[in-house]
Amino acid sequence: MKILLTNDDGIYAPGLRAMYRELTKLGEVAVVAPATEQSAAGHSVTLFSPLIVQQVFEDKVFFGWAVEGRPADCVKLALLELLPHSPDVIISGINAGSNAGINVLYSGTVAAAIEGSFFRRTSIACSLDYSRDQPPDFATAADVARRVIEQILASEPKRGSLYNVNIPPLEKGPIKGVRVVPQGVDVYTEQFDRRIDPRGRTYFWMGRDFVCADPGENTDVEALAHGYVSVTPLQFDLTYHAGLEELRKVEWKI
Amino acid sequence: MKILLTNDDGIYAPGLRAMYRELTKLGEVAVVAPATEQSAAGHSVTLFSPLIVQQVFEDKVFFGWAVEGRPADCVKLALLELLPHSPDVIISGINAGSNAGINVLYSGTVAAAIEGSFFRRTSIACSLDYSRDQPPDFATAADVARRVIEQILASEPKRGSLYNVNIPPLEKGPIKGVRVVPQGVDVYTEQFDRRIDPRGRTYFWMGRDFVCADPGENTDVEALAHGYVSVTPLQFDLTYHAGLEELRKVEWKI
Repeated sequence: MKILLTNDDGIYAPGLRAMYRELTKLGEVAVVAPATEQSAAGHSVTLFSPLIVQQVFEDKVFFGWAVEGRPADCVKLALLELLPHSPDVIISGINAGSNAGINVLYSGTVAAAIEGSFFRRTSIACSLDYSRDQPPDFATAADVARRVIEQILASEPKRGSLYNVNIPPLEKGPIKGVRVVPQGVDVYTEQFDRRIDPRGRTYFWMGRDFVCADPGENTDVEALAHGYVSVTPLQFDLTYHAGLEELRKVEWKI
Repeated sequence: MKILLTNDDGIYAPGLRAMYRELTKLGEVAVVAPATEQSAAGHSVTLFSPLIVQQVFEDKVFFGWAVEGRPADCVKLALLELLPHSPDVIISGINAGSNAGINVLYSGTVAAAIEGSFFRRTSIACSLDYSRDQPPDFATAADVARRVIEQILASEPKRGSLYNVNIPPLEKGPIKGVRVVPQGVDVYTEQFDRRIDPRGRTYFWMGRDFVCADPGENTDVEALAHGYVSVTPLQFDLTYHAGLEELRKVEWKI
């Protein structure tokens, strides 16, 4: 099996390294990842500036390609230009921090997997929630993620199937199991700090933690909060299909 | 009616100015938009750096706020910090270039509308397709967009309803009408230019035009190609609901 590994934390991120070690147990792993951290990059792509690509070596052994661009750029470049063999599977992560609920829309980790799905490859985003008072245990998380990935692949997904996997905080006790759940859609409470810069200009800075007041029942956010791995099948048709009929009743005039 | 107007082409973009003039016919318009062009920003947000916000004046009259951030940042800041009154409706655009098919996922214009929908406001993204061999006619496009917006609002949408409106290229003849259609899901053919920089490093540059080999039948891409305005109701739950049942059959082991 040929695997493309990417992420949004950058090619030097410990989460990617831990995932790499696990994925080599499943097949041949090629790494194409951003040169620098791209968190909350969403599904941005680079159209108007060039993408510098450099080879990264470890102990004189080729490790992968570092792209001075976004996670989605990495997947495009990997499939269209860099890889000698097209991958069967695209894995994005492990991200430092969960990507659940509406944060899925902001996530560069998930965007890379969506881009893989555009290319009709089985694509899986993997993220690790952690409490931020101690460093995340990526080695254990990547082991769990690899087991989940193996079981997803064993279920014989159709071409281009897309999944979002979140691992709960490991420091809060043993994982309780795996739950297959939809994405939460509830809003997070956000706050900006309002400050004045040395030149007297107003600036704002997003507060540290989003809080989801209502994680919903039976969602990825709730599963994570209760210590379960969440597995969510995703798709990239944003159409609100139930709303088409209502709008078609309008007698449009322009 | 209180309207927030934003975009991804930046506060000085002619498309935003044209939209502003039309929207003042519908209500009180507040402008909060990126200071600079943010095309293909997707739903990226700014977490790790401060957002400088400056007031923009025209002929000494306050016009709006320029945010050194992403389209989604603008909506967050507008609703949480900048606007004295919360808007009833959020309009994003008019974008220079269509946002249809899978490009919806890359679009900063649509991301701003999705962010508005997170805040449970009726949110409408507006984009103008154009052939790029002559400047786009934003005045006419904004007039059409305003008429479509009026009719969407007259249909009494539920809180947080989200729409994607695309205007076909005006230089190709009169608009044929309005079609309510789902987002296309077919892949675009993309190409990178591969080049060498003055220091000998390889770089890649995304080719100018994406081509959608198969626009699908009855999609936004197809409607636009045939000279119709496309109206697509959107939502931000990426769950592939039909895939949940299959995955729940797996006897997960970790």
